[in-house]
Amino acid sequence: MTATPHPLDPLTPEEITKASDVVRPLFNGQRLNFRVITLREPSKDELVKYLEAEHQRGHALPSISRCARIEIIVKGSKEKNDLMELIVDLGKTAVVQQQHLEGKHSYIDSAYMNDVEEACLANSEVQAEIQTLDLPAGATVIVEPWAYATDGLNDMSCRISMCWFYLRLLSHPDANYYAYPLDICAEVSENLEVTKVYRLPSSANEQIHNESRPFDRQKPEGPSFHIDGQKVDWEKWTFRVGFNYREGLTLHDIRYDGRSLFYRLSLAEMFVPYGDPRAPYPRKGAFDLGNDGAGINANNLRLGCDCLGTIKYFDGWHNTASGLPLKLPNVVCLHEQDDGILWKHTNFRTGHAVVTRSRILVLQTIITVSNYEYIFAFHFGQDASINYEVRATGILSTVPIALGEPKPPFGTMVAPGVLAPYHQHLFCLRIDPAIDGHKNSVVVEESHAMPMEDSKAHNPFGVGYETRSSYIEREGGFDLDLSKNRVFKIVNEAKINDMAKTHVGFKLLPSYSQMLLAHPSSFHARRSEYGKHAVWVTKYREDEMFPSGKYTMQSMGGEGIASAIEKRAEDVKESSVRNKDVVVWHTFGSTHNPRIEDWPVMPCEKMVVGLKPVNFFERNPGLDVAPSTQEVNKSVLYDTVANNSQDCCQTSRQ
Amino acid sequence: MTATPHPLDPLTPEEITKASDVVRPLFNGQRLNFRVITLREPSKDELVKYLEAEHQRGHALPSISRCARIEIIVKGSKEKNDLMELIVDLGKTAVVQQQHLEGKHSYIDSAYMNDVEEACLANSEVQAEIQTLDLPAGATVIVEPWAYATDGLNDMSCRISMCWFYLRLLSHPDANYYAYPLDICAEVSENLEVTKVYRLPSSANEQIHNESRPFDRQKPEGPSFHIDGQKVDWEKWTFRVGFNYREGLTLHDIRYDGRSLFYRLSLAEMFVPYGDPRAPYPRKGAFDLGNDGAGINANNLRLGCDCLGTIKYFDGWHNTASGLPLKLPNVVCLHEQDDGILWKHTNFRTGHAVVTRSRILVLQTIITVSNYEYIFAFHFGQDASINYEVRATGILSTVPIALGEPKPPFGTMVAPGVLAPYHQHLFCLRIDPAIDGHKNSVVVEESHAMPMEDSKAHNPFGVGYETRSSYIEREGGFDLDLSKNRVFKIVNEAKINDMAKTHVGFKLLPSYSQMLLAHPSSFHARRSEYGKHAVWVTKYREDEMFPSGKYTMQSMGGEGIASAIEKRAEDVKESSVRNKDVVVWHTFGSTHNPRIEDWPVMPCEKMVVGLKPVNFFERNPGLDVAPSTQEVNKSVLYDTVANNSQDCCQTSRQ
Repeated sequence: MTATPHPLDPLTPEEITKASDVVRPLFNGQRLNFRVITLREPSKDELVKYLEAEHQRGHALPSISRCARIEIIVKGSKEKNDLMELIVDLGKTAVVQQQHLEGKHSYIDSAYMNDVEEACLANSEVQAEIQTLDLPAGATVIVEPWAYATDGLNDMSCRISMCWFYLRLLSHPDANYYAYPLDICAEVSENLEVTKVYRLPSSANEQIHNESRPFDRQKPEGPSFHIDGQKVDWEKWTFRVGFNYREGLTLHDIRYDGRSLFYRLSLAEMFVPYGDPRAPYPRKGAFDLGNDGAGINANNLRLGCDCLGTIKYFDGWHNTASGLPLKLPNVVCLHEQDDGILWKHTNFRTGHAVVTRSRILVLQTIITVSNYEYIFAFHFGQDASINYEVRATGILSTVPIALGEPKPPFGTMVAPGVLAPYHQHLFCLRIDPAIDGHKNSVVVEESHAMPMEDSKAHNPFGVGYETRSSYIEREGGFDLDLSKNRVFKIVNEAKINDMAKTHVGFKLLPSYSQMLLAHPSSFHARRSEYGKHAVWVTKYREDEMFPSGKYTMQSMGGEGIASAIEKRAEDVKESSVRNKDVVVWHTFGSTHNPRIEDWPVMPCEKMVVGLKPVNFFERNPGLDVAPSTQEVNKSVLYDTVANNSQDCCQTSRQ
Repeated sequence: MTATPHPLDPLTPEEITKASDVVRPLFNGQRLNFRVITLREPSKDELVKYLEAEHQRGHALPSISRCARIEIIVKGSKEKNDLMELIVDLGKTAVVQQQHLEGKHSYIDSAYMNDVEEACLANSEVQAEIQTLDLPAGATVIVEPWAYATDGLNDMSCRISMCWFYLRLLSHPDANYYAYPLDICAEVSENLEVTKVYRLPSSANEQIHNESRPFDRQKPEGPSFHIDGQKVDWEKWTFRVGFNYREGLTLHDIRYDGRSLFYRLSLAEMFVPYGDPRAPYPRKGAFDLGNDGAGINANNLRLGCDCLGTIKYFDGWHNTASGLPLKLPNVVCLHEQDDGILWKHTNFRTGHAVVTRSRILVLQTIITVSNYEYIFAFHFGQDASINYEVRATGILSTVPIALGEPKPPFGTMVAPGVLAPYHQHLFCLRIDPAIDGHKNSVVVEESHAMPMEDSKAHNPFGVGYETRSSYIEREGGFDLDLSKNRVFKIVNEAKINDMAKTHVGFKLLPSYSQMLLAHPSSFHARRSEYGKHAVWVTKYREDEMFPSGKYTMQSMGGEGIASAIEKRAEDVKESSVRNKDVVVWHTFGSTHNPRIEDWPVMPCEKMVVGLKPVNFFERNPGLDVAPSTQEVNKSVLYDTVANNSQDCCQTSRQ
């Protein structure tokens, strides 16, 4: 190992190897499948002390032990394999914690999924079913295994894979097979046996009636940035870049002009429930972080394609099934770009204009989850704002529909025989704030018309309006209310802005979205939980990183953020979240009722969440950004270019 | 005159001169103040025929007479000046229509405002009041006259100017005087007499009680675009750029791949009501289009500052008070830029990724309205979407507050003695659609969970949801509903998308905003009207271009879109708006409760409205955009740059 890693640095390849070396002897002779070897981030208590010492230069840095968190599947002789979690102290070269995760499943294993695919295609019943289809010569049947979204019809303790069938008509391996969904469906068990083969519904009202009702109501330009390892320094911003197999890109210890803003920002989960009510489609409900992993599925980003300009790439490290380090190259890119005008003012008396253009620092990661891609980007602004932009693109997940069928109320017909079912994309951004310190509160501020009748209100003309604020006192889920311009602010009650005479704070600019449509008693709702409210506030807890629970694969529900709050001891439930180490979770997304324009590949759909200072600074933090000049920006008049070129009208179309 | 102008081309300077030459002799000897000489756009009947012939090449173009609309103030001997509107047929060189606008006011006259300022400062009572303030030596008193927002306390038929007082401490003319609001206020009459001088409230609860209660409850790189005059051709888009003194930038005859989408897009009004309830602040309520004019106040955009890249500028033409042409240079800029990724997909089986970056065509105009600036930009996308982006920047309008006063509930203290009152910015985007023709309908589509209990619904797992649509049948105002994912679609009921089996259409992606907070009985509400609902649907009418009426200066209310609908004859009210020439108006904006970070100059606050095809095309219209390559985009690795440069960490800060 070379230089000592920062406590927040992801595990190095050497550390990954060391961790698996520590674990292997404990299971002598058994076949191990290393699913996860990742940094166990230091406890907040320890890390906060470390960061404080680090920022007060000259202080000795406390030593923090580096720990790896490991998930392994121990292959048993029986059908069910055992999932184990271990914590290895890399300094002590020892396992310090170990747990058998009975009834839990690790995230999707792509090697296993390949086996599922092969087993499914090799199965004689499946082949017989394919024979009945009378497929064109030269066409290839593609089996796409999906994780099973619990619908209450199976014993959940066994892993089941749903196999969806498509046809690839062209010999080219990149031909879009989602254009030809077949109406066969198969289920494959943990030990790769095809347990069921059946036909999918082909009309809107069709159901598969041979299964019982599902659920139990009782249960619920030139680089101006500087990079030092994982640390980024740009304009007045500093922060650290993290990366793990599940969340992908994470950000830590985010500061502006030396002042602490956020301890950690991360996408904590995303859930894609499909709205097609017909069995077996309720089994389509993807937890793209918990089941698939945003880190594992992060793209190897390409210069000049995914990223323009002067690009800094970050690699990630994961592990192979045998516990060796596996490099995930170029999973995060960083660059600076123009973002239009930051501020402008013309003095109308003198005609003198000052224009300052905005430059933003962009950190981007792109993931592919089967058919879909998601582009996640944090934008840092010179006005001390952070925007988190999500773009959804890729290919719609399709199902077959009989020719001549009318358009069903839960899907869009994008090609003959091809239905793109309605679905939602629900993201959860986890915001662990440290607004001038770790003790923060959350205020709900609303804008209300002042009453006209009340003489004390002094509103005789009826034009007055005011803000009304209330502190969130207990953990819970909260809704947006546009009609009241409801704003959630994270403030530090111990710090007053001298001028504005309010607490210093940052506000959430939410992405206004419809919440989960699935019935509260459905497995979708019980398994996701966070989709019920746009904003959740909890106290920080080491083990609460994921709003639908840590193990989402075939989860039964009751492991999410709502249940966690509900299950607290009575005195904890009653205790205040003011001036505490709080976490704010923002649920947002889109109700994606496909357009035919989303086919065969979908143009990006954009969503943006913002974090913006409110009476945190003493003035506009971008005030000292230099005004823009043509000397620097060297732009060109079209008229001069057009006069010099006869054929200026090029097109980028193919 | 050179080449024959297109019927939508703004008036040429020659036409402006000709129009005033026609009008002048009619008022022999009287002093005329030409406020407006602008294109009277052709009637839709005529223009539609013309555009159809134009797009079916080879057809003879019908002749359309060019008309100018003129507003003049005829200076009388009496206090009240007469406002006249005339239509001049430029071909016939004759006035074809003439109207005396009794009780109406033209938009703000900046020359007159200068006179108001001078008269106010010259007034002895004002000077006596200033003497009492004991101002520092060398400081300059600045008088800022504002148009009077009706509050019911004066005879509205006379023009009144409100004079707000500030102090400029530094000798530099660009020093920010909004930092030093004084507590003097004066009112100036039409004939430049100071009619009232008084002190402003200095504490939150203070009122000025000497006036009666106000109201009566009864009432890319190289240019790939092609410009031909005002016509723009880029990728598959074509449209015409218009410009007038009031709306500024307008867009006409917008087509994609030859198919008609929109007849006209324009910002139709914006209203900035202040929420400070204390007299005389209810008089602060600016109609920035109707009172000030987005065209008149459009900035002369500067290369390399307001606009980066290869820029095409458009000039506008207005007129002087004496009726001569007045050039407004560089009021609109056009350029192409990268907009991140348009679409991407990685085939997870082959690992093969295709990335297509998005280029957008941006048309931008920036206006200064006293303290504020607004940046308006239409973004045209390769996926056939249009986004309208509004950025608000500039300087907050401030009022004085006594030192030591607590923070009032309707404002933010941004500096000692300086209160920035809460206010709203309410924009109205007028969308005159022509979705595959002029007969369109508006559908409201909502996403609803399917009932679980109803056995007919086939939703046993509780995951199903569906869209429910209803047509808007009558003119009126409508609200957004996020909880139902309510979407407004403009469709052509005569055209079915063969594949999707729905009507072809475009949907509005609204900017989710709080509506007007002022009491419905207030003058603010009665004068603005459109601020009550997010979406209005009307039938197209030649004279309905402005949702708060044509003459907003000191208007009394009842002239906006709600009143227009209400005043229709009973049979018109009852008649259907389906398959008609409809207009959709979208109200959006921000409830701007200032942050101290908005001071002394405000970083841009962004709002975006989108128009996006829904089952209009046969597939993703951006599918044929060429994939991105490093060969073309020539990006650079940070690591190579950083290694070659010791000091890569430059800052743009001053």
